[in-house]
Amino acid sequence: MFTSIHFSSGGRRTTRASDPVVIEQLRAIVGPENVIVDPERVEPYGADAVKEKFPPEAVVFPATTDEMAAILKLANEVVFPVTARGGGVGYTGGAVPIDGGIVIGTDRMKKILEINVDDLYITCQPGLTTFEVQQAAAAHGLMFAPDPASYKDSFIGGNIAENAGGMRTPKYGVTKHHVLGLEVVTAAGDVIRTGGKTVKNVVGFDLTGLMCGSEGMLGIITEATLKLLPMPEATSTVRANFRSMRTACDVLTKFTPEGILPMAMEVIDKFCVAAVEENFAFGLSREAEAILLVAVDGSNEEVERQAKIIERIIAENGGFDILRARSKEEEDKLWDVRRAISPSLMKYGTLKINEDVVVPRSKVPELVAEIEEIGKRHNTFVANFGHAGDGNIHVNYVVDREDAEAVARARECVAETFRLSVELGGTISGEHGIGYVKAQYLDYAIDRPTLEMMKAIKKAFDPKGILNPGKMFV
Amino acid sequence: MFTSIHFSSGGRRTTRASDPVVIEQLRAIVGPENVIVDPERVEPYGADAVKEKFPPEAVVFPATTDEMAAILKLANEVVFPVTARGGGVGYTGGAVPIDGGIVIGTDRMKKILEINVDDLYITCQPGLTTFEVQQAAAAHGLMFAPDPASYKDSFIGGNIAENAGGMRTPKYGVTKHHVLGLEVVTAAGDVIRTGGKTVKNVVGFDLTGLMCGSEGMLGIITEATLKLLPMPEATSTVRANFRSMRTACDVLTKFTPEGILPMAMEVIDKFCVAAVEENFAFGLSREAEAILLVAVDGSNEEVERQAKIIERIIAENGGFDILRARSKEEEDKLWDVRRAISPSLMKYGTLKINEDVVVPRSKVPELVAEIEEIGKRHNTFVANFGHAGDGNIHVNYVVDREDAEAVARARECVAETFRLSVELGGTISGEHGIGYVKAQYLDYAIDRPTLEMMKAIKKAFDPKGILNPGKMFV
Repeated sequence: MFTSIHFSSGGRRTTRASDPVVIEQLRAIVGPENVIVDPERVEPYGADAVKEKFPPEAVVFPATTDEMAAILKLANEVVFPVTARGGGVGYTGGAVPIDGGIVIGTDRMKKILEINVDDLYITCQPGLTTFEVQQAAAAHGLMFAPDPASYKDSFIGGNIAENAGGMRTPKYGVTKHHVLGLEVVTAAGDVIRTGGKTVKNVVGFDLTGLMCGSEGMLGIITEATLKLLPMPEATSTVRANFRSMRTACDVLTKFTPEGILPMAMEVIDKFCVAAVEENFAFGLSREAEAILLVAVDGSNEEVERQAKIIERIIAENGGFDILRARSKEEEDKLWDVRRAISPSLMKYGTLKINEDVVVPRSKVPELVAEIEEIGKRHNTFVANFGHAGDGNIHVNYVVDREDAEAVARARECVAETFRLSVELGGTISGEHGIGYVKAQYLDYAIDRPTLEMMKAIKKAFDPKGILNPGKMFV
Repeated sequence: MFTSIHFSSGGRRTTRASDPVVIEQLRAIVGPENVIVDPERVEPYGADAVKEKFPPEAVVFPATTDEMAAILKLANEVVFPVTARGGGVGYTGGAVPIDGGIVIGTDRMKKILEINVDDLYITCQPGLTTFEVQQAAAAHGLMFAPDPASYKDSFIGGNIAENAGGMRTPKYGVTKHHVLGLEVVTAAGDVIRTGGKTVKNVVGFDLTGLMCGSEGMLGIITEATLKLLPMPEATSTVRANFRSMRTACDVLTKFTPEGILPMAMEVIDKFCVAAVEENFAFGLSREAEAILLVAVDGSNEEVERQAKIIERIIAENGGFDILRARSKEEEDKLWDVRRAISPSLMKYGTLKINEDVVVPRSKVPELVAEIEEIGKRHNTFVANFGHAGDGNIHVNYVVDREDAEAVARARECVAETFRLSVELGGTISGEHGIGYVKAQYLDYAIDRPTLEMMKAIKKAFDPKGILNPGKMFV
């Protein structure tokens, strides 16, 4: 582990990156205006959505692959930690330099190198937001399918490094399913090229697959070729209330026999329902113990046909107050309930611990029921919502940040929730990754020999351990 | 490389695997009836579709993961080569023990451990054919989407190890997009578990992604959890003739603006057309310089709607003699032309060198035109067909197996074809892999630093080089 070479200085780690000679070399590589060392200005680069602060010694903004390679060559030679950062909105500290060293911001790497409409791909640098990638594709009638909730802030490089998920997974899969090729700078400062421009490519080991979700620990992405799809003509959403989480989730399996694979299937539990109703007064039924949202996309005709079948299935299986959007505006409104959850939950405390466990989707009712019990047992408010269609539930334990005892209870709830998810055949993270936040729980999900193989890969790619140290493995 | 420890004995390699003590130990692990050492009986396990013969010293058939682990522990301790074999129908020698040692046949590992209809996955051992996996899913109204041409013979373990493609790639992607989790026995005989049962899973490095397409060089798959989809209600195929390959391929890009993503888009060049017409007399037009087949799937209504649009687009863009199947039987008939190609081409020689290069699909006309030139230049018959929708073309150089000079010319054609594919932004294999057959060409497509990373992974996973030696890297 990297911790052997750093030492604390105030609350801030100091490593060889702080050496004035190193700072001068970094300035020479990217230009002095693209290196920040001022303590106040580096501070924002020391945290992500977890909001714990680990300020870096410097933040460096390369614009090109060559600059990135030069920075890594230097870091590998001098030996100091390097943490790549995209939008900095992760939930597990993946972009946070907990062992000090430098943060490499990809903010200047925003070039779109090619949009190939005929061949259905886009090649771009990592600093575009995922929304910007989507917009660039949409301008040509194409869709980049992955849609993590953070898509307006998260960078595509970060989404790839974290293998981001989102709502459209039941139909479209996750980020890794849409990455055709990558250019990556290794720990040694070499530039490697994985995959290519085609979906079919079986030439050598699939380093693209390995890089997706590697959390910046095996290399830094400097270019990505992403698969695009024809933009569906229409989408439609059906929303309904249910008297229990189990009836809401049981409906999810009824679409398959009709040949329907919804794009998104989201569920909201009774505590979320109560919270949004209390705070926003949507006029939701008092009998609603769960809300289900089901969205489909495709041609106008097919979307209409499928939405009607979905309405029928929901009505036949215990759904009530069924609403179907007939316009984009109506559709947006149906989703307002979903969007209101996060702000509503913050009324219950100042610290919302949002975990993203995943289980086979038929286990969601059991997961949610047991999580309620965990919350009760530890006297901690908990509310669940999320991607029921792929079993990925956002579990929110909400407590007072200043109440150390309450925070400790919530942490115990989290540990029990992770154990539960694994017991139910799932795992401890569906989309947020491990970072430093979940590192202590990794062995709940991964057994020793598998863990050893992962560590062997890390060692092969980054023998000196300079890339994002302190993450994933404890 | 492993070659350092083996030595030739006649035409057959002999390694420490032939030691009678080792053979006894193998018999003790799997039972004497599941170890073959008789030279005549091992011979069939020394070749695949390439038809070159490298007989193993023994063939061993484990039935369980524990047996597989025990075999690998022994091989790693004694140090002899181990080559896993599925259906043995590969085109690049991936299952062929070119350095001797043992072949591990997965023929007895045919258990379906779980089909989960609600959660849309199947867990099975590697020895089922891909067709058997498809059938098992279909019995529950579900589809396993990957469909390599060899699906009735190839084993699912081999398809994963080779990351097999097929015709449905434009819509459904390749095998790796449908693998949720794996159980793998490592070179050291440890059992590791990658991924899980859910599409979303970002816990540790994505070893599942890495194992797909690793050609048996990083571990042997003993269990796979595969994603299933609702079975589409209907399929429909449109077939048409074109006066040039370019007009046929240009049509492929016209479906996107209509929001249509066909399941399959296959093209057949004029030499294939001539060959099938000469041998089967389908009554194809003499003006047909290319045939295009486009298939869609989905609901009855949507398939009908899309097929009509496809017909219209084809008619507007130079297609003629347009046929649309209105029943399953009619559909089968349209595909007869495609199926007739391989037997027809064998009339032109006794050796058909079938390469599966891939380029961005808009480059297919250029690829095919240049390949014609290569064939002319080297006085070698060549015919092209394949998966135009994803740019994956099967290039068939046909010569007389006994004519060494002609074979040498064909090999030169192949080398030039590979260089061309890379120049056009593609690569040297879309679905067949590298094995030993393409190993000498790997550096056409992969640069040195990327190759070094692949070798570093191999070394990390298999320090003694016992797993499928002599493949991929030369």
